[in-house]
Amino acid sequence: MADESTTATPDETTETPLGAASGADSGADSGTGSGAEAETYSPQVDVASLQAFLDGRYADVRDLVRGNLVSHADVLVDAEAMSRDDFRDQVRDVVVDLASTGQTGLGLPEAYGGGGDVGASVAAFETLAFGDLSVLTKVGVQFGLFGGAILQLGTEKHHERWMADIVAGRLLGSFAMTERGHGSDVAAVETVARFDPETDEFVVTTPNDAARKDYIGNAARHGELAVVFAQLEVAGERHGVHAVVVPLRVDGELAPGVRIEDSGDKLGLHGVDNGQIWFDDVRVPRENLLDRFASVSADGVYSSPIESRGRRFFTMLGTLVQGRVSVGGAGINAAKVALTIAIRYADRRRQFDSPREGEEQLLLDYGMHQRRLLPLLARTYALHFAQEVLVDDLHRVFSADPDHPDAGGLARQLLESRAAGTKALGTWHATRTIQECREACGGAGYMSRNRFAALKADTDVFTTFEGDNHVLLQLVAKGLLTDYSSEFEEMDQFGMVRFVAGLAVETVLEKTNVHKLLERIKDVLPGGSSDEWDQEAGLLDPNYQLAMLRFREEHMIGGVARRIQGRVRNGEHPGEVLSRVQDHVMATARAHVERLVLEAFVDKLATMPEGDDKVALNLLCDLHALSTIEADRAWFMEHGRLTVQRSKAITAEVNALCRKVRPIAVDLVDAFGVPKEVLRAEELIG
Amino acid sequence: MADESTTATPDETTETPLGAASGADSGADSGTGSGAEAETYSPQVDVASLQAFLDGRYADVRDLVRGNLVSHADVLVDAEAMSRDDFRDQVRDVVVDLASTGQTGLGLPEAYGGGGDVGASVAAFETLAFGDLSVLTKVGVQFGLFGGAILQLGTEKHHERWMADIVAGRLLGSFAMTERGHGSDVAAVETVARFDPETDEFVVTTPNDAARKDYIGNAARHGELAVVFAQLEVAGERHGVHAVVVPLRVDGELAPGVRIEDSGDKLGLHGVDNGQIWFDDVRVPRENLLDRFASVSADGVYSSPIESRGRRFFTMLGTLVQGRVSVGGAGINAAKVALTIAIRYADRRRQFDSPREGEEQLLLDYGMHQRRLLPLLARTYALHFAQEVLVDDLHRVFSADPDHPDAGGLARQLLESRAAGTKALGTWHATRTIQECREACGGAGYMSRNRFAALKADTDVFTTFEGDNHVLLQLVAKGLLTDYSSEFEEMDQFGMVRFVAGLAVETVLEKTNVHKLLERIKDVLPGGSSDEWDQEAGLLDPNYQLAMLRFREEHMIGGVARRIQGRVRNGEHPGEVLSRVQDHVMATARAHVERLVLEAFVDKLATMPEGDDKVALNLLCDLHALSTIEADRAWFMEHGRLTVQRSKAITAEVNALCRKVRPIAVDLVDAFGVPKEVLRAEELIG
Repeated sequence: MADESTTATPDETTETPLGAASGADSGADSGTGSGAEAETYSPQVDVASLQAFLDGRYADVRDLVRGNLVSHADVLVDAEAMSRDDFRDQVRDVVVDLASTGQTGLGLPEAYGGGGDVGASVAAFETLAFGDLSVLTKVGVQFGLFGGAILQLGTEKHHERWMADIVAGRLLGSFAMTERGHGSDVAAVETVARFDPETDEFVVTTPNDAARKDYIGNAARHGELAVVFAQLEVAGERHGVHAVVVPLRVDGELAPGVRIEDSGDKLGLHGVDNGQIWFDDVRVPRENLLDRFASVSADGVYSSPIESRGRRFFTMLGTLVQGRVSVGGAGINAAKVALTIAIRYADRRRQFDSPREGEEQLLLDYGMHQRRLLPLLARTYALHFAQEVLVDDLHRVFSADPDHPDAGGLARQLLESRAAGTKALGTWHATRTIQECREACGGAGYMSRNRFAALKADTDVFTTFEGDNHVLLQLVAKGLLTDYSSEFEEMDQFGMVRFVAGLAVETVLEKTNVHKLLERIKDVLPGGSSDEWDQEAGLLDPNYQLAMLRFREEHMIGGVARRIQGRVRNGEHPGEVLSRVQDHVMATARAHVERLVLEAFVDKLATMPEGDDKVALNLLCDLHALSTIEADRAWFMEHGRLTVQRSKAITAEVNALCRKVRPIAVDLVDAFGVPKEVLRAEELIG
Repeated sequence: MADESTTATPDETTETPLGAASGADSGADSGTGSGAEAETYSPQVDVASLQAFLDGRYADVRDLVRGNLVSHADVLVDAEAMSRDDFRDQVRDVVVDLASTGQTGLGLPEAYGGGGDVGASVAAFETLAFGDLSVLTKVGVQFGLFGGAILQLGTEKHHERWMADIVAGRLLGSFAMTERGHGSDVAAVETVARFDPETDEFVVTTPNDAARKDYIGNAARHGELAVVFAQLEVAGERHGVHAVVVPLRVDGELAPGVRIEDSGDKLGLHGVDNGQIWFDDVRVPRENLLDRFASVSADGVYSSPIESRGRRFFTMLGTLVQGRVSVGGAGINAAKVALTIAIRYADRRRQFDSPREGEEQLLLDYGMHQRRLLPLLARTYALHFAQEVLVDDLHRVFSADPDHPDAGGLARQLLESRAAGTKALGTWHATRTIQECREACGGAGYMSRNRFAALKADTDVFTTFEGDNHVLLQLVAKGLLTDYSSEFEEMDQFGMVRFVAGLAVETVLEKTNVHKLLERIKDVLPGGSSDEWDQEAGLLDPNYQLAMLRFREEHMIGGVARRIQGRVRNGEHPGEVLSRVQDHVMATARAHVERLVLEAFVDKLATMPEGDDKVALNLLCDLHALSTIEADRAWFMEHGRLTVQRSKAITAEVNALCRKVRPIAVDLVDAFGVPKEVLRAEELIG
C-alpha cells in the first residue's frame, strides 16, 4: 500500500558470499521445514469447485444475487451518467425490484414475505457488494437498519402493521440514530420523545441543532417512516434512549413538524439520499414506541424487564449487530472485486520491454508486483472464512430459542465482539486493498469508466459507519480485559475511562496466562524448552503460526492489564491512564482479531477434502499467516519469539509463497465468482 | 493509517513489575539521553515567524498565491455545485485570471511576461495546492507541461511565436505524451511524425488505437495547440521520440484530421478536461518541430548534437523534470490541508464522556489519536524541507550558465533522482495522510461540503501521474547502483532488465563501503567498538538518527548489488533476476530517499536561530526520525543495529515525543499558513 515504511524488506547479511544469494533470498531458511525453494508442485485449481467451497451453505442465495447483479449491471453506468436525483430514483427502483426477487428480505419473517433466515440474509448482502454500492447501502438502510429495527425492537403489532410493506419495498424507511453532536456516543443523543398522557401520544423534539439527526439514509428523498432514537421522557422522568416510529412523509409531502435537508454531495454513494432531520414537536400515537424492551402504559407508567438503563439500551443495540456484520462482509467482498481486476490486469499487461524476443514478462511475474497483491489476496481469503464463522455465530444466536444458551448473554457478547473486530479489520482491508489495486492499474484506474473510482469513493465511509473502527476495537479490547461477565453488558458501551478505573487485573491474568500458554505450546511443537520453542517448528506448520498469534495476543492482554492497574495504583487519573495505554489497547484488540481470522482459515482448511484446491488454499493460508507475522516481526523479536535468522527466513518464505501462488492467482480470484458483467473494467481486463 | 499491521505496538516485558509501568511505557528507556519523561518544558511557538521560516525565500510569492486563493475560494464550492462542463469553464476562467496576477508564469521567460524564476514558479505551484486541485492541475498542464515543453524543447522562433500568449493564458495547450498502450514506457510511443520534403511538412499519424494519446489535460475542451511526442521519421529513417507542435482547434473547431474524445468522468479533478486524441495524417509546417535538441533541414537531413537516440530523448525528458518536482510539492501541501483540518478538529472535539465534571478530554489528548496524526505532521515538516532542498537544486541547475558545472550532467542526474524519489514519497505521504485525517474526522469527513472528499478524490492520481511511483523508485535505485556515470543517461530510462545484466558490482561496493561507514560513525558517536555503537548514543542525537538511516541505505545498496551479480553469475536470466530482487531494489530506493529527507530536516534546523520555534521543530525532527526508524525497527534488529531493549526504547520515545508535540500541534499546522477561507471544513473546525 501507499506506505513509506519498509517493513517488508528482504535482505541478506553482509557476510553471505556472493554465490549464496541464489537459491534463497534472505540468506537464512533454516528450520522452515519446506525450504523456500524446495517445493515445485503447482496445484491445478478447479475454479468451479473452489467457488462452491467459498460460497458454502448459501451458494443458492449467492447465485440468486449474482443473477440479479447481472440483470442490473447498467446501474454501474447510471452512477456515472445520471444526475444525482435521477440516480437516486434509479437506485430506489433497483432496490424495489431486488425486493421482488426475495433477495433483500431474507432476514425478515416468513410470515410477511421474508426468508426468515439471518445467515442467508447476510450472504445475500455480502454478495450484493460485488455490484453498485449505493444499491447495497440502500438495501442495508431499508431492510437491515429500518426493517431490522422494526423487527428486533418492535412487537407483533408493529410487525403486523408495517413488515409486509417493508419486505416488499412498498414502505421505505430510515434509521435515525446518529446526531450531529453524537456520532459514536449514541447513548447521549439529545432528541426527546416526551409522553403526553392527555393525548396518549409521544412528542418528538429536536432540542437544539447538535441534536439534528445527521447523514440519515433514505431521509432526503424516499423515506416515509423513520425509527427515531430519542430520550424517552415519561411524567418528567428520563428513561434513556428508546426507539419511536415517526412519519417523515405523507403522500410524498413532509409530515407536519418534520424538517429535512439533503445532507448534500458526498465523496461516494451518490445514489443514497442521506438527509438531516429536525423534529418540531412531532406527535405520534403511543403505540409507535417500539416496545419489545420497554413500554409505557396509557396512564403513563414506564416499565421494562431490564432494570439498568445502560444495559437496556445496549441490549437494544445488540439486537442490531447484524448491520455491523453486514458492513464488514461488504468490505471484504468489495476487496474481492478490486483484486479480481488488478490480478487479471497484471496477468495480461506487459512490463516495459520483454527480456528476450518472444518472451513476455507480465506485470504479475515481477516480485514487487506479487508482493503488492498476493498477500492481500491471501488475507481476503482469510477474512472471507473469518466472516463465514461470524455469520454462522450470528445465525445461531438469532435463530436460537430465547432460552437456549446459544441466545444467551455470553454468546451475544462474544458475537458482538467478533462482529466489531471483523468489521474493523474487514473494512480497513477493503480501503487498503482497493487503494493498492488502483495504483497497480495505473492512471486508467482513475477513470470512472473503470471500476476503481466508484469502489474507492463508495467504500471509503465503511471504516467509519456502523461504528468507527477505532471505537470498535476499543470495544473488542474491553471484552478481552473483562471476562465477558455481566460487567461487559452493564457498562456504558464507550465508557472506557470508568472501565479503566475498575479493571480487575487479577481476573485478566487468571484468564490469560502466558506461561501456561507456553506449556501448551511445548506440547504441540517439537523441540525442548520454552526458550527454544519457536526455533524448531516448521514455518509452514499451522500450529506454529497459530501459537505465534496466540502468544502475542495473550502477552498483550496481560501487559495492558498490568499497565493500566500499575498506573491507576500509582494514583494517575483514569482519563490520563487511558490516553497513555490507548495504542496498546488497540494493538491488543487487533492481535485478538488477527488470531481469530487465522484460526478461521486453518479450521476451514481442516474441513476441506484433499486435492489440488486444498493444496492451493494451504499455500494461501501459509502466505497469510507468515505475512501477518512478518508485518509484526519486530514485536516478535522484541518479545523473544523470533531470532534474527528466523525473522529473515520468514521474509524469504513469504517471497517463495508469492511465487508459488502466482501461477494460480487468476484462478483464485475467479473463484470469488464476481460476475464479469459487474467488473466494469473492460479497458483493463477486456 | 488503515493498516492491519501492528508495527507500532508499545509494550513492556512480562518481567516488569507492576509499579514500573508508570514513568515509562515500554520498560526500557536506558540510553535515550533525554529520558522519555524528563523534559517538561513546552515551547511557545511564534506562528508568524515559523510560517516565515517555512515560506523561506519565496514568502512573497506564497503570499501572492494565498491572496489569489482567497479571492477564488468559491471555486471549491463550484466543484460540487456546477455541471462538469460549467465547472471546467469556470476552472479555465480562474486559471486565466491567476495568469493576470503573474502567479502562473513565474517559470517562463521575463521577455514574454513571465517571471524567469524557476524556484519561485514551483513555490507558487505548491502553494496553489492549498486550494482546488483542478485549478492546480490545469495550471500545471498549461504553464508547466505545455509552456515548459515549448520553452525547454523549442527555440527562439517558437518562443517568439507562442510564449507571450501562453504566459497570458490567451493560448491554451496540451502536453500529449502518454498513449493508451504506453503509460510509463514513453520511449516506446507509437505516434509517428513523418517528414514530407515535398511540402516541407511533418505528417502526424496515430497508427493504431493503442497509440491514441490518452488522458491528455486541456484536450477535451480548451486546448488550441498540443506538444505531441512522436517517433520522428525522416526519409524512411526513425530517429526516436521528438516533440512537434500540432493544432488541436482552430477558432474553437477541431483542427482537420484531429479527433478528440472526452476521457470521461474521473474519480476527481472534475475541472480538468482530459481527452484522448487521434491524428489522421495531420500536416504541420517543418518549423513546428521543437528543435532545441534535433532539427530537420528543408532538404530532409536530420541532425542533432546528441548522437545516442536514447540519451537524446532522456535529455529532452530531463528538461521537463520540473513537472515531477511540482507534483511532489503539491502532494506535500495537500497533506498540510488535511492535517490542518484534522488536528484543529481533534483539538476541539470531545471524546465521549469527560473523565471529570468540568474537565474536557479532547480527541487530541488521547494517545492513539496523537499516534495517528502527529508522526504524520512531523513527516510533513520533514518532506517540506526536503522539497525545499529539491527546489533549490532545480533552481540552481536550471538557472546556471550552460557551461557551469551546476548545469552539468552529474548535477542533472542527481536532481532527476532526487525529484523522482521526493515525488514518490511526497505523493504516497499525501494519500496516506489524507486518508488517516479523513478517518480521524469520522463520517463528516465523507461529505463533500467538508474538504476531505475533494482532497481524497483529487490527489489520488498523484501517485501515478508524472511517473508511477514504483517506476520512479526503480529509477532512483538505478542511480544508486551506478555511480551516476554516463551509463545512467545513456540507458533507456526503464530498461531495468538490460541494466541488471550489466551491473558492475565492484563499482557499487567501492562507492558504498559499510565498514568504512562504521568507522566514520565511530568517530561521530561516543562508545567503543563498532559492535556497540548504536547502544551508546542518545536516541535524540541527530547524528545517531542519521547514522542509522545511512547505515541502512548503504547496507541495502551493497546487498542488492551483490544479489544481482550473484544471480547473474549463476546464469539466471536477467528478467528473472530483476523479478527476484525487485522488492529489495524498491526498499533500497526508499531507504535512500528517507535518508535525504531526514538530512534536509536536520540541516535546516542547523540554520535556524535559537529560540522556542527551534525547540519545537527539534521535537518534530526527533519524532520524524524516530518514528521512521521505528517503522523499520525489525530491519535494524535483523541487521544488528538495534537491540531488543533499544527498539522498545524508541517506541517509548516516540510516544513521549507525541505528548510533547501535542500542546503545540495546532500552532504547528497554523504555521503552514493555509488560508482559512480555503479550508472549507466549517462543520469540523468552525
